[in-house]
Amino acid sequence: MSLLEDLQWRHATKAYDPTKKISEAHLDQILEAARLAPTSSGLQPFKVLVIENAEIRNKLAEGALNPECMRECSHVLVFAAWDRYTAERIDQVYDRTTDERELPRGRFSSYTDKIKGIYLPQEEELNFAHTARQTYLALGLALAQAAELRIDSTPAEGFDNQHVDEVLGLKDLGLKSVSLLYLGYRDPERDWLAAMKKVRTPKDEFIVTFK
Amino acid sequence: MSLLEDLQWRHATKAYDPTKKISEAHLDQILEAARLAPTSSGLQPFKVLVIENAEIRNKLAEGALNPECMRECSHVLVFAAWDRYTAERIDQVYDRTTDERELPRGRFSSYTDKIKGIYLPQEEELNFAHTARQTYLALGLALAQAAELRIDSTPAEGFDNQHVDEVLGLKDLGLKSVSLLYLGYRDPERDWLAAMKKVRTPKDEFIVTFK
Repeated sequence: MSLLEDLQWRHATKAYDPTKKISEAHLDQILEAARLAPTSSGLQPFKVLVIENAEIRNKLAEGALNPECMRECSHVLVFAAWDRYTAERIDQVYDRTTDERELPRGRFSSYTDKIKGIYLPQEEELNFAHTARQTYLALGLALAQAAELRIDSTPAEGFDNQHVDEVLGLKDLGLKSVSLLYLGYRDPERDWLAAMKKVRTPKDEFIVTFK
Repeated sequence: MSLLEDLQWRHATKAYDPTKKISEAHLDQILEAARLAPTSSGLQPFKVLVIENAEIRNKLAEGALNPECMRECSHVLVFAAWDRYTAERIDQVYDRTTDERELPRGRFSSYTDKIKGIYLPQEEELNFAHTARQTYLALGLALAQAAELRIDSTPAEGFDNQHVDEVLGLKDLGLKSVSLLYLGYRDPERDWLAAMKKVRTPKDEFIVTFK
């Protein structure tokens, strides 16, 4: 199957069958797609939290717009971005890169000096605006990977971020929650969106061509 | 091929062969992946601008961090997000959705009233922070689609947004540029990144599991 067929197949699932779990192998593939996502300067300024634990999910459901999905889906992914850039975080990424490529550490120092010069003087809020954006690309690849495996998913932004951050202890990890991805298998009887036509902005409106 | 193989294959191409053009059919597929991207509340608050015109690309190259890619790649996509949410924009999307699904207009009015209540009182800057985020998911699907077709691409944020907005007249379209995607075929001799190992955050660091 092609990516376009996968994207046509998927939809934002509105109700999950609580008896069906996705396999560890499939979960690994979905997480791997997120891990391979390109990010600005290759910094990957985020982590993905995988929530299976029912007690934690019950707590998270308190701040969710779709608490039934939170409780009934197979796994919940939380995309959480760095609260800010630091010299240590940037150096750690580039030291790993040079080590893995068998290059001398500092090989990219003129570049890392430049990005440090941009990010480090910024307010934390502006740093986070940038790190948060990066998570969406990975979110997209994760839900595309789920669709390739015919696993249902629901990306979600509408939730109480502060509540999620507290329940998961994200502050201690230097992270702030950005989005959720519910994963599992739809309950066809309650998933009202499954039968509805997928509607998108028409091509001639979505695309502007400068020939 | 699978999505994971496609993502392993791709890299941020650093130099393009200016003699090689991607076909219209392939370009259509890449744009279609972006068009099918899910977005918050289904609003698709952005457009994709396709730049082939050499004169415009020369002008855009002035504000680009990688002006050679801008000039030498086959096509440049510009992801540009709504400058703000308006009642008209939200109603247009939902009227199209109900029309296409043969439902009465206003079928989702309690929901659209809710999102209008959130977005419309916000400062334009906060609206744009949200619309801009949505473009990254579509950017990710577009580059995944390019990789499936073994078309090289380079996502890029580092450019003079104001210059791009002016050259393309985005203000009149109610849009602001967010990111670029260069598309084409690599020049193997000048694309220094092609031979380098892909490095990512290790799984055990990227993923945090709550069992």
